[in-house]
Amino acid sequence: MIFSSDNWSGAHPAISASLARHAEGMAAAYGTSTLDAEVARRFDALFEREVAVFYVGTGTAANSLALSAFNRPGGVVLCHGEAHIMVDECGAPEFFAHGSRFAPVAGPGGMMEPAALRRALAGFDPAFVHGGRPVAVSISQSAESGALYAPATVQEIASIAHEHGLAVHMDGARFANAVAALGISPAEASWKAGVDVLSFGGTKNGCWCAEAIVFFDREKAADFAFNHKRAGQLFSKSRFVSAQFDAYLADGLWLSLAGHANAMADALRTGIAAATNARAAWPTAANEVFAVLKRSAAERARAQGALFYDWHVGGDTPVGEDEVLVRLVASWSTTQEEVDSFIQLVG
Amino acid sequence: MIFSSDNWSGAHPAISASLARHAEGMAAAYGTSTLDAEVARRFDALFEREVAVFYVGTGTAANSLALSAFNRPGGVVLCHGEAHIMVDECGAPEFFAHGSRFAPVAGPGGMMEPAALRRALAGFDPAFVHGGRPVAVSISQSAESGALYAPATVQEIASIAHEHGLAVHMDGARFANAVAALGISPAEASWKAGVDVLSFGGTKNGCWCAEAIVFFDREKAADFAFNHKRAGQLFSKSRFVSAQFDAYLADGLWLSLAGHANAMADALRTGIAAATNARAAWPTAANEVFAVLKRSAAERARAQGALFYDWHVGGDTPVGEDEVLVRLVASWSTTQEEVDSFIQLVG
Amino acid sequence: MIFSSDNWSGAHPAISASLARHAEGMAAAYGTSTLDAEVARRFDALFEREVAVFYVGTGTAANSLALSAFNRPGGVVLCHGEAHIMVDECGAPEFFAHGSRFAPVAGPGGMMEPAALRRALAGFDPAFVHGGRPVAVSISQSAESGALYAPATVQEIASIAHEHGLAVHMDGARFANAVAALGISPAEASWKAGVDVLSFGGTKNGCWCAEAIVFFDREKAADFAFNHKRAGQLFSKSRFVSAQFDAYLADGLWLSLAGHANAMADALRTGIAAATNARAAWPTAANEVFAVLKRSAAERARAQGALFYDWHVGGDTPVGEDEVLVRLVASWSTTQEEVDSFIQLVG
Amino acid sequence: MIFSSDNWSGAHPAISASLARHAEGMAAAYGTSTLDAEVARRFDALFEREVAVFYVGTGTAANSLALSAFNRPGGVVLCHGEAHIMVDECGAPEFFAHGSRFAPVAGPGGMMEPAALRRALAGFDPAFVHGGRPVAVSISQSAESGALYAPATVQEIASIAHEHGLAVHMDGARFANAVAALGISPAEASWKAGVDVLSFGGTKNGCWCAEAIVFFDREKAADFAFNHKRAGQLFSKSRFVSAQFDAYLADGLWLSLAGHANAMADALRTGIAAATNARAAWPTAANEVFAVLKRSAAERARAQGALFYDWHVGGDTPVGEDEVLVRLVASWSTTQEEVDSFIQLVG
Repeated sequence: MIFSSDNWSGAHPAISASLARHAEGMAAAYGTSTLDAEVARRFDALFEREVAVFYVGTGTAANSLALSAFNRPGGVVLCHGEAHIMVDECGAPEFFAHGSRFAPVAGPGGMMEPAALRRALAGFDPAFVHGGRPVAVSISQSAESGALYAPATVQEIASIAHEHGLAVHMDGARFANAVAALGISPAEASWKAGVDVLSFGGTKNGCWCAEAIVFFDREKAADFAFNHKRAGQLFSKSRFVSAQFDAYLADGLWLSLAGHANAMADALRTGIAAATNARAAWPTAANEVFAVLKRSAAERARAQGALFYDWHVGGDTPVGEDEVLVRLVASWSTTQEEVDSFIQLVG
Repeated sequence: MIFSSDNWSGAHPAISASLARHAEGMAAAYGTSTLDAEVARRFDALFEREVAVFYVGTGTAANSLALSAFNRPGGVVLCHGEAHIMVDECGAPEFFAHGSRFAPVAGPGGMMEPAALRRALAGFDPAFVHGGRPVAVSISQSAESGALYAPATVQEIASIAHEHGLAVHMDGARFANAVAALGISPAEASWKAGVDVLSFGGTKNGCWCAEAIVFFDREKAADFAFNHKRAGQLFSKSRFVSAQFDAYLADGLWLSLAGHANAMADALRTGIAAATNARAAWPTAANEVFAVLKRSAAERARAQGALFYDWHVGGDTPVGEDEVLVRLVASWSTTQEEVDSFIQLVG
Repeated sequence: MIFSSDNWSGAHPAISASLARHAEGMAAAYGTSTLDAEVARRFDALFEREVAVFYVGTGTAANSLALSAFNRPGGVVLCHGEAHIMVDECGAPEFFAHGSRFAPVAGPGGMMEPAALRRALAGFDPAFVHGGRPVAVSISQSAESGALYAPATVQEIASIAHEHGLAVHMDGARFANAVAALGISPAEASWKAGVDVLSFGGTKNGCWCAEAIVFFDREKAADFAFNHKRAGQLFSKSRFVSAQFDAYLADGLWLSLAGHANAMADALRTGIAAATNARAAWPTAANEVFAVLKRSAAERARAQGALFYDWHVGGDTPVGEDEVLVRLVASWSTTQEEVDSFIQLVG
Repeated sequence: MIFSSDNWSGAHPAISASLARHAEGMAAAYGTSTLDAEVARRFDALFEREVAVFYVGTGTAANSLALSAFNRPGGVVLCHGEAHIMVDECGAPEFFAHGSRFAPVAGPGGMMEPAALRRALAGFDPAFVHGGRPVAVSISQSAESGALYAPATVQEIASIAHEHGLAVHMDGARFANAVAALGISPAEASWKAGVDVLSFGGTKNGCWCAEAIVFFDREKAADFAFNHKRAGQLFSKSRFVSAQFDAYLADGLWLSLAGHANAMADALRTGIAAATNARAAWPTAANEVFAVLKRSAAERARAQGALFYDWHVGGDTPVGEDEVLVRLVASWSTTQEEVDSFIQLVG
């Protein structure tokens, strides 16, 4: 009954096996091995176009480095006020971009509202240097709130951004869960909707350490090899990431793992909806569930070994004195038994 | 016959097996798992004192981030002019430290000379802000040149640094090879000789991706968790590094792998000394060999599949028109057969 | 009738005369001349303690550099959401501090509310690196809104900051106007209320280019000479700033100039209160006035040569379709005639 | 007899008078006043083309900010190993460019040798990210050594730089002295010789605080307003710089002041050549003279009130035990009497 985070999960056996299989022998370093090239082609196939892919070690590095590619002095990145890059990455996005500013854009359910983005952009005047200048818009899919942007909304946000000459970044730490839940293609979920650069996460969904920055227009990545190396993110034995992605992207493994996590979250949602000591804090659709539990129920569950975090960001959800707001994350390795046991405890 | 670099080697079976063994089950993220704690204690034991250990993804990150901890505005780091941090890390050390400067200190054999360090430091006046201020001294053990600092020299350099209030950093991308070659303890090779912070590399020596920054005085690392996270180097599934180090440090595996690499380099050295078409470019002692080959011999070897890089940094070694300066790196997986075949080709 | 900004004003004759007087002869450079030392003692006298003073060229540099002295990796500065450092300095504060983050704290009238600060600080957990760590609180006195913090409120904010180990910075671009309006001593307005570092502005109030960073505890400025030089802010002929401050601080000139500007703003406030085509947008107390004008009245005034800016940040003030929110700034050189003419036009 | 530095001199009466003349009245801020526009046209006329001019407060800011405009991640700036930006600006150039690296290029007399530049550039491979990538070449005219680049040499250096796609920066803290000594036009000394961006210094030559960054191709400055503001270098009352440059550039004042300084240095050179207790350390041509004095003569001169600095950077000039290497700088305000008295003392 561990719902602390999907990054508490281990590595899927297929990932482990791939690593073991590629451990032998010599291979060219720094992203130039045969396997590296093969996996790059897998990414092309996945996204139905020639993309530029760069591996990094963490989601923080993926987001920060991807955004830094679009920064310019005085640059401002617009994102939701609860975005991970805004509040949960220790200033890494500002550091990698040498001091860019992140301006919050409002929106319900932890998601940026296109109209709010338009209003925020209207507040900048390119001739007024004091205010800085927007350089990019960043959204998370799925969002930190567990919600999903409708593909049409992503498209609308991207259109507004492009009208203003801004790049569109998608934090896809849980991109797999979003794609699995939306039932659209990776291309539809990204560049076809206007995304310019994607943080494509594998770590939370069955890999050990496999994050990629994907540029959909190779031209825009022309200079990026230097950003990448300078940030200490160019792995010498890069095939250790390639080996993970090789298995992850083969035979739709990534989507079936994400689909399983989503299904387990659905089971949590169903159980909570029916429970007397728990209720949904707000609607969610991917592999995260936010719930308001009776304090006694939460304690009972924890006493029985359930692990999950109290949550502090919660919009306007009213939480009573005898209640507690919590986050439950399902992963590729969550089992139906774990869900059932938990629901029984808080039922 | 691949002598391109030790980072072309794969992962040792014991490392692979450890990763597979730890792949299962949930574990606390961000360096807080049971395994993380166990491996931290392994580091304490290895160095015979309580140390502070932080994992990073690359040697560049290890060096850059370690040094950034000691930087202050106007800071200058003194290192050999051929140091990796000076010429081979794409400005990462300057970037991580928000623009510190690296000042070259001369010395033969790719190693800093204590007297030259003393002279360089005499050129700085703490009251003269224009010139900046030294903040750290960095040396590589083994050095980029394949040579080894005598323990007494490390001690002398560290004493000079400490007299001036500077931190001492050791780039230990090949620390294992140095320790194995010198036959001293890890403690003697580091903090007992005055080293304050060590980049402890595992990747080149049989791991996939396992680099650690080791602070020998925990006080000096009190703030470092924020540096670490902000640099995008705090792994969520940190146990994937712990699992590698767990096997790497068990039963002296790290030293036996490094010892093997050194032995293969010794065999290369012996063969080259006896060869008619090759000669040592300068004395080396760890797992790297620099040689001057007759151009024809180099071509013959390459035609037969030998891989190695031409080298451009070479001090004062005279290289004839019909010769070429090359680097040969032996690794944990280099075999006697490879060495013999190569020597035969250039013999 | 120019109310665009106090930085549109020229230099006071006494400032001009002092510059002319000190133009002759040689003097030691980089802040080490006799005049520099004398003016440093003037600052000690002004603030009734030994302070450390550093000149910079702009208010942006003053705020950014002052705050950078307290930054650490992952650092967060708390300030009002409408603060100049937050929205009007082109990311300079983030740049100077290598990527610190600025977190908005709410409060009415453009001023931070102590209770809101306390709530904001409660949201940070020093053991949770992801969220970063607060390093400083910054307030503007007078505020961007033209309002003044009550001395007791400054004290309360500073107490909260100090409880949390944070530095307190005051943006005093209009410190003179605040001190003149509050009728307290510079010491009471700053360090006696808990301020650790002050951006002391002279430029808007009769100087040409005279901004100083004042540290009230010299210990905290021990390292700052390097910050200062590295930021390109150490003037070679520093006596050109000293000459300005020499006249500015002599015989209370600075306070009488600020008092005049405040009086002219009072006259504007009185006129607007009585006008039929204008009303105060919100209460102000120093030398800035924010007013809602009938659009026709604003156009009439502008047609007659009045200059003033439309304003976009305005809290909750309702502005009708036929109205416009404007800012009117009085300066040391504003005349009663200008005010009267303007009031007549919008009356 | 003050030869410490030209930045010990005061402001020329014409500069003072211009400041006083422009002190009155209101004027648009942040570089948008009528006077600002007029002086911008003066710069166009001076350089015989439309240029983009940005004022900054110090030479350090001019050099650092100018170079930052051309930096990219992994960027390397090539300059002489004794260049001011390399050793005398406290890391500001690295800081402003977020961590660029400065690589020394050798050359006699404190001046970069074109052949050495060519060799240095040959050492970089654009496909090898580890080594970084050259982005600019910077030379000082006149050089720190008091020597002057021949116009043909500047042209040769610029051609090499442009062949490699690099920008050419000229540190012109003493550009006036160089132009006066060479007897060529400002255009010939800069863009006609291939210079892309010039740090145009006025401070050392009779101004108070007047430094300008001049881009010869306005396109290359398209984005620079944001660099400028973000660096805290956009003066609100920018006319205080314009007023200085207005007088400085009128009627060739700048050249006659520099010519005077050069003439005084010539007198020093002549006197030293004939002296028994002094000799030239190396050939100089602008307003700086480096001399080797008998220690007793230096002490005698100082006892009589002469001020000058001992020098530490000195190439290969042999300096005896009883001698001392010193720098003597003549300025616009140096008198023949001062020179004569000094020569008599060390004669």
